[in-house]
Amino acid sequence: MEKLKRSHMAGILRNEHIGKEVILAGWVQKRRDLGGLIFVDLRDKTGISQVVFDQEVSKEAFIIGETLGTEYVIVVKGKVYERFSKNLEMPTGEVEVFVEEVEVLNDARTPPIYIKDDDQVSENLRLKYRYLDLRKQNMQKNLKLRHDVTKLVRDFLDKENFIEVETPILTKPTPEGARDYIVPSRVNQGKFYALPQSPQLFKQLLMVSGTDRYFQIVKCFRDEDLRADRQPEFTQIDCEMSFVDEMDIMDINEKMMAHVVKGIKGLNITLPFPRMTYKEAMDRYGNDKPDTRFGLELINVTENLKTSDFKVFSSTIEKGGIIKAINVSGEADNFSRKDITNLEKHTKDYGAKGLAWIKVTEEGVNSPIAKFLSESEIQSVLDKTEGKTGDLLLFVADEPSVVHGALSNLRNYLGKELNLYNKDQCNFLWVTEFPLFERDKETGRLSAMHHPFTAPVDEDLLLLEKKPEDARARAYDLVLNGHEIGGGSIRIHTSEIQEKMFQVLGFTKKEAYKKFGFLLEAFQYGTPPHGGIAYGLDRLVMILAHEENIRQVIAFPKTQNATCLLTEAPTTIDDDQLSELHININSSEENS
Amino acid sequence: MEKLKRSHMAGILRNEHIGKEVILAGWVQKRRDLGGLIFVDLRDKTGISQVVFDQEVSKEAFIIGETLGTEYVIVVKGKVYERFSKNLEMPTGEVEVFVEEVEVLNDARTPPIYIKDDDQVSENLRLKYRYLDLRKQNMQKNLKLRHDVTKLVRDFLDKENFIEVETPILTKPTPEGARDYIVPSRVNQGKFYALPQSPQLFKQLLMVSGTDRYFQIVKCFRDEDLRADRQPEFTQIDCEMSFVDEMDIMDINEKMMAHVVKGIKGLNITLPFPRMTYKEAMDRYGNDKPDTRFGLELINVTENLKTSDFKVFSSTIEKGGIIKAINVSGEADNFSRKDITNLEKHTKDYGAKGLAWIKVTEEGVNSPIAKFLSESEIQSVLDKTEGKTGDLLLFVADEPSVVHGALSNLRNYLGKELNLYNKDQCNFLWVTEFPLFERDKETGRLSAMHHPFTAPVDEDLLLLEKKPEDARARAYDLVLNGHEIGGGSIRIHTSEIQEKMFQVLGFTKKEAYKKFGFLLEAFQYGTPPHGGIAYGLDRLVMILAHEENIRQVIAFPKTQNATCLLTEAPTTIDDDQLSELHININSSEENS
Repeated sequence: MEKLKRSHMAGILRNEHIGKEVILAGWVQKRRDLGGLIFVDLRDKTGISQVVFDQEVSKEAFIIGETLGTEYVIVVKGKVYERFSKNLEMPTGEVEVFVEEVEVLNDARTPPIYIKDDDQVSENLRLKYRYLDLRKQNMQKNLKLRHDVTKLVRDFLDKENFIEVETPILTKPTPEGARDYIVPSRVNQGKFYALPQSPQLFKQLLMVSGTDRYFQIVKCFRDEDLRADRQPEFTQIDCEMSFVDEMDIMDINEKMMAHVVKGIKGLNITLPFPRMTYKEAMDRYGNDKPDTRFGLELINVTENLKTSDFKVFSSTIEKGGIIKAINVSGEADNFSRKDITNLEKHTKDYGAKGLAWIKVTEEGVNSPIAKFLSESEIQSVLDKTEGKTGDLLLFVADEPSVVHGALSNLRNYLGKELNLYNKDQCNFLWVTEFPLFERDKETGRLSAMHHPFTAPVDEDLLLLEKKPEDARARAYDLVLNGHEIGGGSIRIHTSEIQEKMFQVLGFTKKEAYKKFGFLLEAFQYGTPPHGGIAYGLDRLVMILAHEENIRQVIAFPKTQNATCLLTEAPTTIDDDQLSELHININSSEENS
Repeated sequence: MEKLKRSHMAGILRNEHIGKEVILAGWVQKRRDLGGLIFVDLRDKTGISQVVFDQEVSKEAFIIGETLGTEYVIVVKGKVYERFSKNLEMPTGEVEVFVEEVEVLNDARTPPIYIKDDDQVSENLRLKYRYLDLRKQNMQKNLKLRHDVTKLVRDFLDKENFIEVETPILTKPTPEGARDYIVPSRVNQGKFYALPQSPQLFKQLLMVSGTDRYFQIVKCFRDEDLRADRQPEFTQIDCEMSFVDEMDIMDINEKMMAHVVKGIKGLNITLPFPRMTYKEAMDRYGNDKPDTRFGLELINVTENLKTSDFKVFSSTIEKGGIIKAINVSGEADNFSRKDITNLEKHTKDYGAKGLAWIKVTEEGVNSPIAKFLSESEIQSVLDKTEGKTGDLLLFVADEPSVVHGALSNLRNYLGKELNLYNKDQCNFLWVTEFPLFERDKETGRLSAMHHPFTAPVDEDLLLLEKKPEDARARAYDLVLNGHEIGGGSIRIHTSEIQEKMFQVLGFTKKEAYKKFGFLLEAFQYGTPPHGGIAYGLDRLVMILAHEENIRQVIAFPKTQNATCLLTEAPTTIDDDQLSELHININSSEENS
């Protein structure tokens, strides 16, 4: 048990503490021996204070000071003085503590990674020694930010009469359609729990139960191949409300987000947030999560080029394709041919076969495709795109999904490259009226775009049978700076429409009841109209922290291989344990 | 989309609303047609309001009113009036709403259980129709109470500079020693994640990382055979602090509990909480979680009876056993022989072979064993137990664990039966200085009583090798009204003592590193002294809600068979899915 009790955190010492006796506890960030004095940067999660060992203050302390290594854990007692040579880049840089007593609480081996924010070590090494990596000030800042975001959310929802209700982790497959993680049951031989992909069904059942306003900040699980911003387990802010429509839900949620952004960044966000239909978002941005901090909108020039002699354009249009352009205004002189070839790369991942371009110069247009276009076609395109001298026009011609994918990706790249927005700006946007279904290109099967509990727009109800693909959903996504941070919908609340929905999705009534019978049955006992939303907390915090990767805001994340480099999970387990769970490992690989 | 928007909750209407136009939404609790009027009890989670359909107010509404069935979901608009015949037992009983407009949002089949608190239906039916069961006011109250408790905890810890950090659910086996739930990995063939029994290792790693003050309200998992107050998944309030000792942790935690009790019950709890060593708790109450709301302490009369001729007593003492008594003061006349035989039952579950008794009457002692005892022995026992006229003395003689188990169980039964305490009272107690180890009676193996990361009391360090069973742990439990609601310890923070600990527990160094190597390694890079505590949230809320069963405070609990009667989890799954996970079901039962 240490004898000295910490009185202050290391990061908070200022001029006002001069003359005070303090006790600090923390880690040795750095030790310098200089002119008969020992200077130690003492670090805790709040920051660093300089502490000085001086023989004339305490010979005993000085002798111990000489033994201190990097990352030793110490507690020191001493008086705060004005610093001789101030360091104004450090918040505590005007003062230092002269050590009267010191206690070494633990020593330390030389750490395999440096404890500083810009350490350039590989992420794998950082993950293996995560407990050292988390000593970095920026990582501690991210953990604190995450805590603050959830606190702000909880405070807001509590005030609005939502209650947090925990739903089961050991449960039944949920309707999202990704692969489930499963858990063998020991007591119920041959049976398995699924870890929830979301609390969707339970939160709807809570609405059936009259809970009225529910929320939960909760772990969800999807066994999918991981991209940069995915993890096998992730956290949702999950909400549901009864007796409401879209407007009510959007209204309370934008107030919540404004509360969060105000609390974290001190910014006042204008309410209501802008709202845009899915169709408009696709038309103008090629994307259902547009970053509205900058322009560079997509301009449809199909009509203007439909009589073109240029084969690439005309054949695209013949096959039902489209041509869209971006006007990179004023940038013609800043992009060489080589630069434009580089831009083209950002479209190819999305299947574009090429990126056509026109520079508008004092002398007319400069473009490899100019020779295929008539004067009037060029003029018509310039009119449509508002192209003027100095502008660079970029074109993609293909089927709509390719054009939209390619140009929206290029647009996001250019927005960042050309510094078209302020990093601290927060542009929220509601995207509404999503299609209810999407059709798998290969199998031709319909699936629910959001999930099968999403209500159709009332006036599209009859389309369910006749033209399901044209039916719009009462669904909405919340977009922040080009990221989808949340999505939700008004739910179906009658078993008739729910059964119809399953029928359109190709389920027999029996299948539907086998999977979701408890919900279909619940709908028959008096279910209120209800709807909700779920946010990806990891992604939201990542954006607010200005990080590029959700692993930066998760204390103990997994790799893209779904392993934890720190604990080495997953691991092998004993045969006895498997046998108790009534399972064997299938060592011969039978699956394709 | 409903046309009418709710303006008020049903449970809040009072005299002050008279004359106001309100819109209520909810469920039809009851409909009565009386004297040309239709009276409907409209229920939402806040309570019930009476709404009246009167042809003279609205003929259209009245016609719809005639069609309303139990649990129909409706929204009504109307004016609040003073009620003609007031019902002062209902909070809203002084007013009623005369309906001008009504909309039926959903109809309902006759529910299989009644929506009222004292419905006497089987718990299994309640669990199958949990969404109906949760409509009951007491269940909604419990959900709200649970929300309020977690909110109070989070607010308190946030103010005290704790941050909530999420730790992984898909992880490695943790050190608690119960059976793990496991999750097969698809990507890493033949390997498994374990669901955490607690975040113990991660929270210690967070202390290594300098996070300083951590908490989390988090799901934990144990695959054990379930008792009444256990669930496969349960929720912990988990805390850890650095640079502290026991006193700091107890101090901040009792402030937290006082904050919770004040917030929930409005009670002011005196701080600090009483503290008692494990040894004293066992001596005085036979129990390490004594209910201190009442006396009936255990009194050791072994010395007083050691020369007794009564074979049961003398042979017990010869074999190293003890005799303890409870003085049920003033109750001699209230317990017949038959009553005492009933009391005996409460000792037999704990292995007691019998319950001896003495009634102290005006005429001397009345007891079946009196004839075996000498006058001086009887006097000595009366002196020790402070037995006086009217008292009933109850005795158990056996080995200490049986005596303590039997008498503490009997004591708790009597405390409740005899109404010795006020149900609303909150008696907290810290129990300290637990043994570090316990020895398995059958195998003779030592295991950690708390867990293997618990620090020994400094002065007992040398006992680790010589007499491990005598070593005390720096562990503490928090007891509330006879329930252990939380437990924690100061942790070992050096790899030397941690390795020694594993050695005493019979691990080779290699085994210890295989299981917990990442923690042992972490301890070498500068680990601060640290400790913490974990609370069982379900049990805490159960006690505060005056419930007898944690299922009453869990929205969707599982049965003792670890199944969910609502969703029918766990379920069978497709062979394809198993094959993708590289496992088979072991249909022939090989395990014993």
